[in-house]
Amino acid sequence: MKTQDVELGERSYPIYAGKALLTDPSLYARHLSGRNVLVVTDSNVAPLYLQALIESLGNHNVSQVVLQAGEEFKTLDAVSTVYDELMAQKFDRSSTIIALGGGVTGDIAGFAAASFQRGIQFLQVPTTLLAQVDSSVGGKTGVNHPRGKNMIGAFHQPTAVIADIDTLQTLPAREYSAGLAEVTKYGLINQPAFFDWLSDNLESLLQLDPDTVAEAVLSCCRFKAEIVAADERESGQRALLNLGHTFGHAIENAVGYGVWLHGEAVAAGICLAARFSALSGFMPHAQVTTIEKLLHRANLPIHPPAEMTAAQFLELMSRDKKVRDQVLTLVLMRGIGKAFLTSSYDREALHQMLAEQPAKAAT
Amino acid sequence: MKTQDVELGERSYPIYAGKALLTDPSLYARHLSGRNVLVVTDSNVAPLYLQALIESLGNHNVSQVVLQAGEEFKTLDAVSTVYDELMAQKFDRSSTIIALGGGVTGDIAGFAAASFQRGIQFLQVPTTLLAQVDSSVGGKTGVNHPRGKNMIGAFHQPTAVIADIDTLQTLPAREYSAGLAEVTKYGLINQPAFFDWLSDNLESLLQLDPDTVAEAVLSCCRFKAEIVAADERESGQRALLNLGHTFGHAIENAVGYGVWLHGEAVAAGICLAARFSALSGFMPHAQVTTIEKLLHRANLPIHPPAEMTAAQFLELMSRDKKVRDQVLTLVLMRGIGKAFLTSSYDREALHQMLAEQPAKAAT
Repeated sequence: MKTQDVELGERSYPIYAGKALLTDPSLYARHLSGRNVLVVTDSNVAPLYLQALIESLGNHNVSQVVLQAGEEFKTLDAVSTVYDELMAQKFDRSSTIIALGGGVTGDIAGFAAASFQRGIQFLQVPTTLLAQVDSSVGGKTGVNHPRGKNMIGAFHQPTAVIADIDTLQTLPAREYSAGLAEVTKYGLINQPAFFDWLSDNLESLLQLDPDTVAEAVLSCCRFKAEIVAADERESGQRALLNLGHTFGHAIENAVGYGVWLHGEAVAAGICLAARFSALSGFMPHAQVTTIEKLLHRANLPIHPPAEMTAAQFLELMSRDKKVRDQVLTLVLMRGIGKAFLTSSYDREALHQMLAEQPAKAAT
Repeated sequence: MKTQDVELGERSYPIYAGKALLTDPSLYARHLSGRNVLVVTDSNVAPLYLQALIESLGNHNVSQVVLQAGEEFKTLDAVSTVYDELMAQKFDRSSTIIALGGGVTGDIAGFAAASFQRGIQFLQVPTTLLAQVDSSVGGKTGVNHPRGKNMIGAFHQPTAVIADIDTLQTLPAREYSAGLAEVTKYGLINQPAFFDWLSDNLESLLQLDPDTVAEAVLSCCRFKAEIVAADERESGQRALLNLGHTFGHAIENAVGYGVWLHGEAVAAGICLAARFSALSGFMPHAQVTTIEKLLHRANLPIHPPAEMTAAQFLELMSRDKKVRDQVLTLVLMRGIGKAFLTSSYDREALHQMLAEQPAKAAT
């Protein structure tokens, strides 16, 4: 087991990553203060890990909520289900919520923890690659609005993140690949050496070689912890973590939540950001190809859905949280490992590129 | 106009109190940063003040939501209505919500502001006595769960509070009296001289004498600002502001939200806290009578509903946010102006006192 701290003053917390952590009672004992624990998980993960986790909690008073799995159920109604159980069990402010599962479960459970009695503790036990390398770290919680992704939420840091890489063995290959989109993102933002390492080790990663997986998970947690520590509430550089996400959220919303996995939409979104960076003269075209090749090897889409129009993209992107007084800030790249934020770009060129996408998508 | 600052470091903000403030464009101009403004109000207040407020906002892009008035509508559904309008208007993170109305409106609008895109700015324009002296100050936002009051919410400080005492002229007498329960509360917590001033000036207050009202509102804002500045997130002394509220919330929940006004339930709750303080030997019985007399003169109930049983009280109080691992902390008094927190009290005596209440309530 290795530990990476997220340094946020009073709100600092450790990320534990390694094998056989989900059933390690000492980790829970260290981070549970009150008697009452509510485990929130989903219908995919419950049959695999819920019982094992509960048995590792010792003599706490444990209750559980099993949510319907899928991004399309990341709604305020799901959060209400969590509130209802907390109230039915008379759980008080000293209670803890444990989020067991992927990013959707963590986001829902985290927002419930942020808002129940104006804030209770919560522990992240991510079981997907995407959640382990990205969504469980950093305190962003929330749910989707029918008109926009992650529009309702709060910043609420967990008290610990317990990332057991053994759980990735049961993850469907498609979801594992989706996680690799976020892994790749860190290389593109500010870690060019990691991007090269990833290119060299992708086959081992796809074969779930434990040492390679552990190194990838820990590296990503370290990269994210550094960015979050520097800018907890995304007033500046933290927005770089949204590389590919503005385009990606538009794709998810357009095709319907859950049709494309979040990581798949991000992969296509990263490629759009790369292409627009090259078109705008920020980045060599050759690097776009390098990025596309890596994502393609990871079995990820590198083009948006053929049926999406430029108008649809721009309409959905206009609702992005990075819009300020109707101006959308984009995350673009000056090269691999050189992401930057800009609101100075050629809107006409963006429109034109998006209009030409569907033809490309056929390839 | 007088100004009282709430000192909270980066989150500090001013409370303006006085006449003709609601239509003062300079106050809004000073505190609105982005272009977009959503005014949230209710069906009682909209016909009285919505148009006047909107006309004072200059050339901002203004939208509005009119909620159904009443505590029974302080629900997650009401918050959703606010999200829906924000999304329909494509309002972004630089938008501001203005809460125009009483405590219910401020609580709903404030929680929407806390959670929309993980937090946008909001301005409180309280139009009831209760909101001006209590709920608009201090950053507590939230809504009720069917099983418990204010169970869902967040701490989210406003950017300013604009308390126009002229609006109290249109407040129904019953609601004005309800506000006086919270005014009295400050005297009981730690301001014995203010309690005496209140006894001496109650008739002027009930007659809405402008100078007396202004003095009462400003004094209460000052008292609350001091307590909030010392303990923003209620880890200790701020809980004294809940004097009468644990009993009061149980009453509101038992009779159904909106049947008793919040301030009415707090008045009866204060009397229960006073009686239990005297029964427990903390406070002279004569002071209980003094408190009851003042609240009675303010046209407030001093007994809980006759039909409420001790079992019902204890069941509902067991869901209070001040419960920690099944132990309920109470706010009691060692005398007028000497409130304190304790979890060491005779539970049997509390049960007995509550069991005897219904008989008394007939008086």
